[in-house]
Amino acid sequence: MSHATPILGVYLSDSLDLEALYGDALREGAGDVVLRHPHEIDHPEDVRFAICWLPNERAFEPYPNLALAMSTGAGVDALLAHPGLDESVQIARVRDPHQADLMAGFAAHEVLHRERDFATLERNAATARWAPLPMRAPASATVAVLGHGTMGRAVVQAVAALGFSVRVACRNAPEAPVEGVTYLTGEGAVPAAATGADYLINVLPLTAATEDVLGRALFATLAPGAWLVQIGRGEHLVEEDLVEALERGHLAGASLDVFRGEPLPYDHPFWQDDRLRITPHIASDTLTEVVAGQVIDTARALRDGQPLATGVDRARGY
Amino acid sequence: MSHATPILGVYLSDSLDLEALYGDALREGAGDVVLRHPHEIDHPEDVRFAICWLPNERAFEPYPNLALAMSTGAGVDALLAHPGLDESVQIARVRDPHQADLMAGFAAHEVLHRERDFATLERNAATARWAPLPMRAPASATVAVLGHGTMGRAVVQAVAALGFSVRVACRNAPEAPVEGVTYLTGEGAVPAAATGADYLINVLPLTAATEDVLGRALFATLAPGAWLVQIGRGEHLVEEDLVEALERGHLAGASLDVFRGEPLPYDHPFWQDDRLRITPHIASDTLTEVVAGQVIDTARALRDGQPLATGVDRARGY
Repeated sequence: MSHATPILGVYLSDSLDLEALYGDALREGAGDVVLRHPHEIDHPEDVRFAICWLPNERAFEPYPNLALAMSTGAGVDALLAHPGLDESVQIARVRDPHQADLMAGFAAHEVLHRERDFATLERNAATARWAPLPMRAPASATVAVLGHGTMGRAVVQAVAALGFSVRVACRNAPEAPVEGVTYLTGEGAVPAAATGADYLINVLPLTAATEDVLGRALFATLAPGAWLVQIGRGEHLVEEDLVEALERGHLAGASLDVFRGEPLPYDHPFWQDDRLRITPHIASDTLTEVVAGQVIDTARALRDGQPLATGVDRARGY
Repeated sequence: MSHATPILGVYLSDSLDLEALYGDALREGAGDVVLRHPHEIDHPEDVRFAICWLPNERAFEPYPNLALAMSTGAGVDALLAHPGLDESVQIARVRDPHQADLMAGFAAHEVLHRERDFATLERNAATARWAPLPMRAPASATVAVLGHGTMGRAVVQAVAALGFSVRVACRNAPEAPVEGVTYLTGEGAVPAAATGADYLINVLPLTAATEDVLGRALFATLAPGAWLVQIGRGEHLVEEDLVEALERGHLAGASLDVFRGEPLPYDHPFWQDDRLRITPHIASDTLTEVVAGQVIDTARALRDGQPLATGVDRARGY
């Protein structure tokens, strides 16, 4: 394998040092996939691909022969919307099963935290107060999951294994459905899944069609006092509609991990609202070795003219 | 069905009003299974069965023809150890799949709470601090589950669905093993499951063989800084060995839901130890309709001379 023709890529991020994150794992994994910082590149016309995290507007300009832009994460909305990426450049992303497990664990934790009222249990324990709380069968609570990609499938498996009644809004009916889970497809799938739900977990990809999906109309369909788990993208949520839904009682509260502006500013009112559980975009993360392995595989496939296993359908948006 | 011969049972509990809890559901479910408080019974020789929650030492004395003592919960250690229950009296319990789901949810919450360090996330959020924490792949963490009855199986399914590496100590190899889970049987199964584990979840039944199982020797086998989730019985845990394991660093902390004395006294030092998460025996509960349904089924089986689906093997202890 090490005698194969090398292929040259470039790290493109202003906010992360991708070489520091992935360089060692990439060098260990492959001698034929070579990555450099922009300032290290003498012949930009040799660069065939870019590894990206929020590349700036002009980041792609120096590379006339770029054929692939690959995100180091699962979301590619920033690349799809990038003004400097020609339609002819393929887009790929990382698909990390561990990342999906992490996401499922985060969602399960937040649902259980609310369902079993651990906030009250913890307050009671702090004052040595022994006070059992009422509980219901998990099957009596309906969890709606929006999105059924790698993340959505892992979330569905986890909440179904915990005994909750699960409804999923998905693009296509699944090949291997989880027993007892209701899969909804087509135009009205999202409101159909949400209607009467006690929990709403958002793991949709961000596209023009899903932006602002978490808004007034959808919140009004939920069971009174429902709980939102927002682990998609900040742009899915209409913030003022969330506040209104809390005031009206459509929502009792929400777990918010992603925001339109990150980091969430210290003076954003969400921090002070005790109906909200705020976390710093940590529902999941990709693992170094997985990212490096998929960068190598994808770069080699590009070089060899093979289809890209983690390639993104530009029209569909994910 | 309402023309069947009635069978008479008695409620036996000093601490719970079982009639208030289950009376309505029992009357609704069956006319032929009749339950009374002791003071309502004129002919004690007619009583064939008892529904029990911690019956006192002399509770069974008035009923010479008692053939069955049924617990309203999953645990029957109090009945098996009862000095007033003759060997000839059958013992039964409730098997509630919802109860197992509740137990699994509690265990999953506690593992995730520790694994993702939600305590720190919550402290940070309280001061509007945006600070992502490092995370590892769930598969890199080993969860040992002790016990593989109705509760243990549900716990195993849940933590496996969350991507953790799971090892189970069980009496018999399972008929339908969960993919990827390691099942350990035989004499040394408990220490074998615990050795090197990051999490130790106890859902064993309480028997002479399992009392004090959560003690110094077992804690010493765990990965340094492991976390205990104690949702079996209080008598499984040697309290002073837990404190020692915390001091030595074998355990970073523990979630304790059951205790040798309940309620846990307000001045017990566990309440003040911030390495411990104390909950008031709420990991799960049986549901009224399920208890009533199984009481009716079991009483009818007894009357009709059929085997009891939820009968307990006295020799085995569960």
